[in-house]
Formats: sequence, C-alpha cells, structure tokens
Amino acid sequence: MRAVDLIKKKRDSGEHSREEIEFLISGYTRGDIPDYQMSAWLMATWIRGMTRSELAALTEVMLCSGEVLNFADFPGKKVDKHSTGGVGDKTSLILAPIVAAGGLTVPMISGRGLGHTGGTLDKLESIPGFNVNLSLEQFRHVLRECGMGLIGQTAEIAPADKKIYALRDATSTVENVALICGSIMSKKLAEGIDALVLDVKTGSGAFMKREEDAVHLAEVMVETGKRMGKKVVALLTSMDQPLGRAAGHSSEVIESIEVLSGRGPADLRDLSVELSAWMFFLGDRTSSLEEGRRLAETMIATGQAREKFKQGIALQGGDPAVVDDPARLPSARFDTDVAAERSGYIESTKCEQLGIALAMLGGGREKKEDTIDHGVGLEFHKRIGDAVERGEPLVTINYNADAKLAEAKAMIAAGYEIAPQPPRETPPLIRRLIGA
Amino acid sequence: MRAVDLIKKKRDSGEHSREEIEFLISGYTRGDIPDYQMSAWLMATWIRGMTRSELAALTEVMLCSGEVLNFADFPGKKVDKHSTGGVGDKTSLILAPIVAAGGLTVPMISGRGLGHTGGTLDKLESIPGFNVNLSLEQFRHVLRECGMGLIGQTAEIAPADKKIYALRDATSTVENVALICGSIMSKKLAEGIDALVLDVKTGSGAFMKREEDAVHLAEVMVETGKRMGKKVVALLTSMDQPLGRAAGHSSEVIESIEVLSGRGPADLRDLSVELSAWMFFLGDRTSSLEEGRRLAETMIATGQAREKFKQGIALQGGDPAVVDDPARLPSARFDTDVAAERSGYIESTKCEQLGIALAMLGGGREKKEDTIDHGVGLEFHKRIGDAVERGEPLVTINYNADAKLAEAKAMIAAGYEIAPQPPRETPPLIRRLIGA
Repeated sequence: MRAVDLIKKKRDSGEHSREEIEFLISGYTRGDIPDYQMSAWLMATWIRGMTRSELAALTEVMLCSGEVLNFADFPGKKVDKHSTGGVGDKTSLILAPIVAAGGLTVPMISGRGLGHTGGTLDKLESIPGFNVNLSLEQFRHVLRECGMGLIGQTAEIAPADKKIYALRDATSTVENVALICGSIMSKKLAEGIDALVLDVKTGSGAFMKREEDAVHLAEVMVETGKRMGKKVVALLTSMDQPLGRAAGHSSEVIESIEVLSGRGPADLRDLSVELSAWMFFLGDRTSSLEEGRRLAETMIATGQAREKFKQGIALQGGDPAVVDDPARLPSARFDTDVAAERSGYIESTKCEQLGIALAMLGGGREKKEDTIDHGVGLEFHKRIGDAVERGEPLVTINYNADAKLAEAKAMIAAGYEIAPQPPRETPPLIRRLIGA
Repeated sequence: MRAVDLIKKKRDSGEHSREEIEFLISGYTRGDIPDYQMSAWLMATWIRGMTRSELAALTEVMLCSGEVLNFADFPGKKVDKHSTGGVGDKTSLILAPIVAAGGLTVPMISGRGLGHTGGTLDKLESIPGFNVNLSLEQFRHVLRECGMGLIGQTAEIAPADKKIYALRDATSTVENVALICGSIMSKKLAEGIDALVLDVKTGSGAFMKREEDAVHLAEVMVETGKRMGKKVVALLTSMDQPLGRAAGHSSEVIESIEVLSGRGPADLRDLSVELSAWMFFLGDRTSSLEEGRRLAETMIATGQAREKFKQGIALQGGDPAVVDDPARLPSARFDTDVAAERSGYIESTKCEQLGIALAMLGGGREKKEDTIDHGVGLEFHKRIGDAVERGEPLVTINYNADAKLAEAKAMIAAGYEIAPQPPRETPPLIRRLIGA
C-alpha cells in the first residue's frame, strides 16, 4: 500500500477500506507518512467527504492511536458531555460538579478557545493555581477522590488527532463533518466513558451556522459513538445569542458559581440541568430523564454541587476560596457600555462577532499563540425579544487595554439587530434531540 | 496575506489574483511556505481547477522564479517542440537536427521518462558519453556551434516548477490541465524561444486518453504561450499505438538515425517532417508550411540533418560514430517474440500497457529512482489495420533479465485486440491543429 495511491483514490471520490485508513493514520502518527502527503489527503477528504463506514474506521483508528483510559475499577458509570462551542458556553463548569455530586464519574478532557469561542481549560485557568495539565495518574487520583476531573489532551490520548488537528489548522481543512467527528469522538471515547451527551450548537455564534449542517454533524457523531458501543445522545441547541449573561474567563467562572448557588440566568441554568439530566439518565443513575432533572436540581438546591466544585478546584491545585469570594478571580480595571442606537426590540444577534470582539480585547485568542487576559469580559444586558430604549446599555465591557476598544465597541454595536416590533418568535434554546 | 487563507479560497472554488499566486509560488520556492501547505493548495487546485487568468499568472510566476535564457545575440529565430509523451515518441531526436540543419536554433530542455513513457534525456544517454547535464554556459556554446542543444532542467531554470513537480508527484496532483500547462510552459518559455510547436498526444498511450481532455490541454497551452508573446501551435496527434516500430532507448536512437538517413517507418517520418515544417514556418525560416515540409525533406535527403546529429552528439561529449555504426549502442543479449493468439486484423492496442511492459523489463522507470537498461527494447511488427496470422510475431522483445519476462509478455499479448474483420477506419496520425 502506498500513500500516493490512497490520496489519488480519495481525490477521485473513492471509498477507503478500514485497512487503508489504518495505513494512512497510523503511518502518519508514526512519522512514516510525511505532512505533505497527509495534508493532500485531508484536502481531498475535506472536498470529497467520507462515508459512514470510513468515518467509523477513522474514529476507531484515531482512538486506538493512543491510550484508552479504563476506569472499570471505579464504582458507577463514567459519563461526559461535549459541546461544539460558542459564546458564553460555560456549562461544563456547572454540570461536572452537578453530575459528580450526583454520584457518577466525569472524566472530562477539554480544549482551549480559538477565534470567537472560549475554551473550558482557559476558563478554569482564571482560577489561581488551577492546573489542567495533570498526568494520567494524577487525573485518576482526582477522579477517585471527587468524581470529576477537567484536564487538557495529554500526549498519551489520541496522539493521531493531536498531530492531524495541528495540520488541519494550518491547511484550511478544519470545518468538515467527517474530520470534526473523528477528532471529537476519538478523544471523547479515549476517556473510557460509558455515555456521552453532545451539545451541538447551531446559529450565528456556532461553527455550524445552518441547522441542517449541525443536524448532520450530530447524527454522524451519535452514530459513530453508538457503533463503538457507547450510549450517546445529542441536543441541538441554539447559539443565536450568547449563553447566559457573561462571556470572558473570570466572568464565566463567576456566572457558573451563580448557577451552582441556585441563582444565575435561566437559559444557562436550564441547559445545565438538562444536560446533567441526560448524563444521569444515560449513566443509569436515574431511571428517567425527569428523575435526572430532579436530581440535578437537588444537587444545586442542597449546595452539594457547589461543594463538589470547591473540592474539584482544590484537588487540581486551584484556590477553592474563589467560590465564596469571586473577587479573588482576576478582574479588569475599566468598564464601558455599548448603548442601543435606537429604541425597539432585539431581533437577532451576530453572536460570532460578539465573541470576536471579546477576543480582540484580549479575552480570547485570535491565533493559537496568543495569551489570554482572564479578567476581560462582556456582560450582556439584553436578549432576543427584549425591549430596549435608545441609549440603554446593551453590553458592558470589562477591559484593561484600550488599543482595540473602539473597534470592539463598533463590532458589538453592529452585533445587535434592533427592530421596531418584537420578533414573531424567539428561538427555543433546545431545538431538537438526536439519537434518543 | 496568509497561505492558510489562500488554501481556503481555492478549497471554496475562489479565483486567485495574480498577487495571491505570486505569494504562494514565490513563498514556496523560497521556502517560506512549507510543503504541507503547498500540497493542500495543490489538491484544492487539482479538484477545483483554475481560470485562464489564474493559469497565465501561475505560468508567468513559475517562469520568473528562475533564469530566462536569452539568445537575442544569436542570428535567426529560436524554436522548440514539446510533446506530452507516449510510447515510441522519439521525434525530438529527429527534428532537432533537421531544424538546426535548416538554419534555426533549437534550445531544447527535455525531461526523463516515468511510467509508460520514455524521456528524451534517457534516450540520448544511451549514446556512450552523451552529457545532458550541461551548464547554461556550455549549453550556449553548443547552440552557437551547431544550432541544437538537448539538456535537462537545470537548477537555474524554473526552480518553482522543479520543487512543485516533485511535490505533485508524491501527492497525486499531477494529471491536471492547469498544473500540467503551468509546468510545461514555464520551462519551455524559459528557453528564450520565439516559437513553440506542441505535440499533444491523445489515445490509449497518452496521458490524456480522451480527445476532449487533450484538446482542452492544447488550447490552454496555446493560449498561455500566445499571452506571453510567443508563436505557438499545437498538433493533436494519435497515441493509439506506438509511434514508429521501436520503443526502448538504444532502439529509438537507431530508429531516429534511420529516419535521418531517409529510411524508417512512415508514421514517424511523417510526423517528424510535419513538426519540423511547423518549426520552420513559425520560426520565419519559410514563408509557408508547405515550404517548411520541403525544407525538412531536403535536410534529410541531402544528409545534412544526419551530419547535424553527429555534430550535436560530439559537442555534448557523445560518440558520433554511433550514427554510422549503431552496433556501438548498448544492446540486449536475448530476444523473444510475442505471437498472435488468433488470426485476424489488429483492431486497437492498449498502448500504455506496452510502455509499462517495457518499463517492467528495465527499459523504463516504474519509480523515479529506478535505473534504466538502455539496451532493452520492443520491436512492433503490426500496426492497427494490419492482417495477422495466428502464431505470427506481434512484438519482438530484446531483454537482458527474465525476472518479469513472463509478466511482460502476457501484458504485451493482452495489449493487442485482434478482430475477425479489418477496423472500419484507422485513426489518422494528426487529428487536429489547434491555434494555427
């Protein structure tokens, strides 16, 4: 078998056998196949696509390129959630403590933010001392102690994905359902979980802006997970506007603590409870989804989830006192408002623009090498359907450097569509359920 | 400008500006853009294609990546021919002496054989001592002395093409009209010629098997050459069967000497005269094509072309005595016939298979690194339309090693389609003229 022939096959819209995919992915991971052949194959695959069986093979081969964690010696089921990302999406910080407090194990391997989206690891690192770079041994220890652990991808986990993802990023072969699915599922399945809840975002702030693309990705990921013997469900949720009221690292940690304390915005709370409920249900902790919801609510109401979050922070080297005293988190020195330019009703948001504006102010990464200012954040005062008066603040910006402030303000102002009448319908947060 | 954005643009079927192509090609040639980004762009370009203006920019940028030869101080016009390649195509060895004897300068930069096709450089190297690796200074000297020079691509000529071609070969991005045209035309235009005759092959032994693809390539190359201010014409010629009666390195040199001596097979002689005539006409040596034909015939009949070949060989370090005594060329120790399995008429040949069989016996390269056995050859006894008796030899194989002999014989036998009736029509050798 030769790489050059397999590139030709995909170029000409052929279907690879499992052996061919194994040859390509393993060969590349070992270094036998050079970057330039893999990138030509990735581009051919991006354009020509993959069949379901090619995709299953890709995921399995990438999964098997590294260590697959095994928590069989832990009591109860291991469950996780993965979100395709958006603006203000901090549910991982909320549901991991809820589900761990409820008795399941949540071995969560997360990513960093890039472009308009935030990343769970970056948010956690706004907590002084919090270490996301645990060894697998330390990870296992933390999980055994408190049932939740949140780390980054290690060298042992799906090394094929790590190497391929870096190449995709440099060769414009990222946004493709097959390649995204292979990348996500190989990492998630390497966590040694029994069940996975997918939060697939769609709308103006999602990677998959069109609902049909998001549905396709969700279906493909659910099918791939099930083929590998896992319980998987996908919630197709709205990213037409930011989730919750806060975006930015410290401020998202604070808003997560609010929800864990029984407060916080309704949309964020509802989605966190719903995702937790599915994790409880798929993880056989409850016999119904409804019972799962009640258990999640109870974990919040009794303060157990909040205590679990403190315990998790402490076990990963962070300062648990931030939960009671959020002023210990990094903050920004200045704030300024972006006001509505006319009166009316919020019709829609250009949600991705809001995320990009945050990154421009230092609260995100434009390039992978950029460092993050954890104190920078945006506070959103208006949601789709809300009435607004001319001059009323739409967004409060917390910032430190004003080099790009004017540009960011203009982008945020242009990110809100204000109409004279209220919108006919406000989009539901949870649009569809796939694979249930 | 960033390579990753330009890759995305081509991936999404966008059209590049001249500046964007310059950025990509020059950046890659300098080493600023890595192989893996160029190969992703090449694959996107292979699949999405290029517009005529993108192609013109590509050719020009590749041409300008190196030295453009200038023979303005030489009297008369400088002309060349390029063939897209096939089996038994040795016209360069014949027409270069004819046209140089006729008074024009032929600065020919040729290539090597790969796969089922032979290469002019390899054929010349079967002449003991012949050196195709001249410096540009030596090349200029040879041209001044005898009006013809045949060398390989130097480091100075179109280095962008040299680097990109190696990458295309390893990433299955070779067979694409835009990329082929850019590669050929950038090298040929770097020769400092005034006129170029293209021999674009079509049929079972050509790279472009379908006539419509060959026509498209011919049109694109003619247009590109004219845009650059050159006189260009393309002859669309048949490669449905080998050209002449011989394939293999020594044997093609011998057959070329036959034609230069006023003998040799009619098809090879006719095509050589026709291509020479176009070179004379486009090079303003004759005022009509018909006059060009007569001049070519005269150069053969008077022995001037044959003497020119000797002179050219001597100037490039080769043994000119091979022209009078072809036994001085390398030969094979053994020969064997492939006989017809049934009586009838030759209906068609799988011409590419015949070339592959030759390469398998050592008379060509399966991989670029392979060395060539110059003595190995095939002698073709039957042409399309010829009657054949069961058991009569179709092909005589001259060989040295019999490791793959049985396989090659089977491939050759399967390469002839024998029908009970003569074919309704035999394909004309010259099918169309493009750009005249």
